[in-house]
Amino acid sequence: MVLDEPLEERIAEILKPLAKRFPHLDMEAIRHGNRKQAIVPEGATILDPVGTAPGLVVPPPDGGHGPTVLVLPGPPRELQPMWHTSVQTEAMRAVLAGAGEYRLRVLRLFGIPESEIAETLRLAEREGIELKRLEITTCLRRGEIEVVTRYEPSAEEVYDAFEALVRDRHADTLFSVDGSTIDEQVAALLRGEAPPGARAAIGSSAATAPSAPSSRTIAVAESCTGGLLAARLTDPPGASDYVLGGFVAYANDVKSAQVGVDPTLIELYGAVSTEVAEAMADGARTRLGADVGVAITGIAGPGGGSEEKPVGFVCFSVAGPGEERLIRSVTLPGGRLDIRDRSTTVAMHLIRRALRGAKRRLTR
Amino acid sequence: MVLDEPLEERIAEILKPLAKRFPHLDMEAIRHGNRKQAIVPEGATILDPVGTAPGLVVPPPDGGHGPTVLVLPGPPRELQPMWHTSVQTEAMRAVLAGAGEYRLRVLRLFGIPESEIAETLRLAEREGIELKRLEITTCLRRGEIEVVTRYEPSAEEVYDAFEALVRDRHADTLFSVDGSTIDEQVAALLRGEAPPGARAAIGSSAATAPSAPSSRTIAVAESCTGGLLAARLTDPPGASDYVLGGFVAYANDVKSAQVGVDPTLIELYGAVSTEVAEAMADGARTRLGADVGVAITGIAGPGGGSEEKPVGFVCFSVAGPGEERLIRSVTLPGGRLDIRDRSTTVAMHLIRRALRGAKRRLTR
Repeated sequence: MVLDEPLEERIAEILKPLAKRFPHLDMEAIRHGNRKQAIVPEGATILDPVGTAPGLVVPPPDGGHGPTVLVLPGPPRELQPMWHTSVQTEAMRAVLAGAGEYRLRVLRLFGIPESEIAETLRLAEREGIELKRLEITTCLRRGEIEVVTRYEPSAEEVYDAFEALVRDRHADTLFSVDGSTIDEQVAALLRGEAPPGARAAIGSSAATAPSAPSSRTIAVAESCTGGLLAARLTDPPGASDYVLGGFVAYANDVKSAQVGVDPTLIELYGAVSTEVAEAMADGARTRLGADVGVAITGIAGPGGGSEEKPVGFVCFSVAGPGEERLIRSVTLPGGRLDIRDRSTTVAMHLIRRALRGAKRRLTR
Repeated sequence: MVLDEPLEERIAEILKPLAKRFPHLDMEAIRHGNRKQAIVPEGATILDPVGTAPGLVVPPPDGGHGPTVLVLPGPPRELQPMWHTSVQTEAMRAVLAGAGEYRLRVLRLFGIPESEIAETLRLAEREGIELKRLEITTCLRRGEIEVVTRYEPSAEEVYDAFEALVRDRHADTLFSVDGSTIDEQVAALLRGEAPPGARAAIGSSAATAPSAPSSRTIAVAESCTGGLLAARLTDPPGASDYVLGGFVAYANDVKSAQVGVDPTLIELYGAVSTEVAEAMADGARTRLGADVGVAITGIAGPGGGSEEKPVGFVCFSVAGPGEERLIRSVTLPGGRLDIRDRSTTVAMHLIRRALRGAKRRLTR
């Protein structure tokens, strides 16, 4: 083990802002404590820290045929970018040169239970598609089904046949054939870009592909999700280009006084109703001057449910970008956390639909 | 393996709502597909599903001294409640009867780097505290330090000495000595309850313990966090008792037109400034008629930073519950996701401080 002085220096640089934030700290002691991070096996390739911990590619001890060891820090936000850096190093390239090629394809579906995909897999086998040449895993993730397939290049045709079957059987629920997420698709649509993979997925064809997409702004009014949808929409860098903001209208008074929902509507239909959702979407859109307004109001539980409107009952509305209104009510399964999270997923899919509808009209 | 018919029936009951949500589904096929979940080892204790999958406690095959196997579904929201059910079963009680007792204690600190706790551990050793009788793990979690200690009952005094040292050295940053989270403490304070563990932690004593706490309502105005703080405040069941709602004021126009920030302030000091944060907190409080208003405005990046206000620079303000104003600006490390998340943690700690300040005054 040897002390790598340039690395020690780099870690010290990284720690400098700490000293600014915590002026009373004994930085010399901290620097000493962090020195061990700069003590590395001789001959190892050092990967620059993303946090404060460096990564290492350690070659076989005798330069021979033993294993190459890759050391990365654990936190995902450090590990993930450093993995990409690591595979660019000469030492890792040498290791990977001998590896077989694997392809990875991801399909995403929304609005069907996992068991429906299981049924499709059984059907594929009955139709003679050689599923054993594909390594397929399905996962229910935030209310969507993710179908991840890995295969060797020679099985490309088998995968194509499988994908064709999924497209055929699940045309109305398959929304991504290139792994793009609903969040990426919504962000692209709001930016006025052709969403990744959308052309190839449901509801569009060469004839309806947008020729002149335009960007759109969006505003929200949320009750039961309490800000989760706005947080999700503002998650991507650059979201300020199209997210104006909106209202967390948790109390009924806020729905009326801030979002402009007529109190009579709340009285007549209840705060959790498609009528109030529609008025909230309109209010968010109008008050913020956005192209699209989206609203969620529901019963996240555990209290507040009734026979007519049980826990999990959630109403949605998307107003715009044109004259359209999408209105939807669903009863979502699970606990408070699931209901709140899945509500944002339902809303994202409605936003996608509203924006794609508008695009289709543009090209008519 | 045997089919447990009552269990099959229970799973079928659980699946019924699916049929309502997806009327086109072939429920007979799905029920058939789920039957295998009801096929269990003979003699196993069945744990009721929280989702659709049951759990199992499988005794040793010959009723003898082999291992007891506990089978639980993987999703945390199913696993966690079913773990608690499982330890109540006779089969698991028998296994656990032979286990040694371990105690678990959790301390939480906010506002110091992990290396400071490492230094405290070194000091504890120098002072002769027998740390090897404690199993201590420290973890940096969402901007806070969590110190988890497990020990046998005979080491209680060793733990007490360790905790006393932490209290002594970190009096200004230790906020929980009973494992309660900042979210739980803020919720309790807003409800007007004595927050769990707060009495024993910093800034309070028997003399300042609240004798007549009162509940408070809260409203938010968020820019860079885009709804994350409101989402965090509305995460606990019953949050509607004290969260009124607020504004996601992402665009500057929304800050002025909806929250009521004087556009001159934005022009003079910039949207990311303590002046604008203060006006946002006031606006949220006044417009929603809340006891407390809290605001966040900052630069989450990756774009938008400058020399004076780099990425990670975030301003906070809490207005209320009385005449007080808390104002704070920090420069947070990490990427966009970290900056947004840690901003909500800083805000939660400011809210706690504002509410405790008010309580202290009440008892004077």
